[in-house]
Amino acid sequence: MFLIIHHFVYSHVSIPFFNTILNPSFLFICYFNYHAVSLHKKNIVAEYPSVLLENAVNEFAKLPGIGRKTALRLVLHLLKQDEVDVEHFATALLRLKKEVHYCKVCHNISDTEVCEICSMPQRDASLICVVENIKDVMAIENTRQYKGLYHVLGGIISPMDGIGPSDLEIDSLVQRVINNDIAEIIMALPTTMEGDTTAYYIYKKLKPYQVRITVIARGVAVGNDLEYTDEITLGKSILNRVVFEG
Amino acid sequence: MFLIIHHFVYSHVSIPFFNTILNPSFLFICYFNYHAVSLHKKNIVAEYPSVLLENAVNEFAKLPGIGRKTALRLVLHLLKQDEVDVEHFATALLRLKKEVHYCKVCHNISDTEVCEICSMPQRDASLICVVENIKDVMAIENTRQYKGLYHVLGGIISPMDGIGPSDLEIDSLVQRVINNDIAEIIMALPTTMEGDTTAYYIYKKLKPYQVRITVIARGVAVGNDLEYTDEITLGKSILNRVVFEG
Repeated sequence: MFLIIHHFVYSHVSIPFFNTILNPSFLFICYFNYHAVSLHKKNIVAEYPSVLLENAVNEFAKLPGIGRKTALRLVLHLLKQDEVDVEHFATALLRLKKEVHYCKVCHNISDTEVCEICSMPQRDASLICVVENIKDVMAIENTRQYKGLYHVLGGIISPMDGIGPSDLEIDSLVQRVINNDIAEIIMALPTTMEGDTTAYYIYKKLKPYQVRITVIARGVAVGNDLEYTDEITLGKSILNRVVFEG
Repeated sequence: MFLIIHHFVYSHVSIPFFNTILNPSFLFICYFNYHAVSLHKKNIVAEYPSVLLENAVNEFAKLPGIGRKTALRLVLHLLKQDEVDVEHFATALLRLKKEVHYCKVCHNISDTEVCEICSMPQRDASLICVVENIKDVMAIENTRQYKGLYHVLGGIISPMDGIGPSDLEIDSLVQRVINNDIAEIIMALPTTMEGDTTAYYIYKKLKPYQVRITVIARGVAVGNDLEYTDEITLGKSILNRVVFEG
């Protein structure tokens, strides 16, 4: 072990010099330094001067993508704010969790029993776009290109994460197709193995009901160069070419 | 305007080609595309399907370094958790804000009136390390090299941010020096213009009381190569060299 460390530290020193540095006192210093480094690594988690602070940091550090250092920074920022601001922060979260509804038609997040999109008469109720989560609804709404309704699955089939078809809103989608006059189901699921599996599962479930099932186009993104587009996407864009209308 | 856009888009096309593309229908398409892009930019802020969700996202987006997309991700994560977990999160923040104390001696964050460090008898009470904030206390504590007490200023003098000496715990530091038997004040402030200004201000304030004032060493970081160290740091490390003790 020490020889490896020596080699690492003194790899730029000529070989004869090794004889002079391999004396017992140097070895002791080397061991001490090595020990100090390992001691430091063990205590990398900071000790907080207050249990209240530690609790708040722990809670923030549970959020995805927030480490303990970022959590501490955020908590200290909140600590600097007025008490009323921190109360606003906390109550906004609690109210969201306690009072939020999920639309009973499309399962999108909503303040009412049936969400704004589902209750709009000018929307085309014969068109349903199937998406993974509410972020996808917001993304499609922002394009202003879609005037139909949605169906939020609440996830995609992912055996690795223990999410099966029964955990998702697939049965309610089938019921919607049975009970309503639906002309087309548009699949807008992620282009991953899980997304494709989910789309195929829904396709199999809906096949008996003679509804048109489509999937959003995969192709070269607007503004992208052909040479930097991956082969699968470029291949799909050629297979799924559309008539040029000028 | 259109000519500029044309020039931008077709700068790689030969000049004679311009005649064919400058027909009215092409101009209309160009205008339409341009308009669509500006429309998109105006509506870059997503419309949330729920006011409760929007409020929660707004609160998270106020935190430093958290944009609206990250805020939405964090809020949707919390929404997936059990209600009791969200309550733990909210109450941890509220309790921290309402119940936290600042040590009346060193102004470090604390659960008690006098913090753990200040009330430890084995600590050297004649040594005070002056730091900007509690993160610095934690950083120095983690080194396990310091056995004195601290004094947390709560910031540094920064006219740009409207922070003057009266906003900081400088007067209480002077009082500590007057009322206690202090042997040495160690300045551990940031190496910025603001940090140096603050250190100089404190130095001037403490000069009449014949206390030893030191500053932490500036030099080449352990493990760093000399050739990649900036000139000011390397220069300081030569000027402030210490006796080699093997």
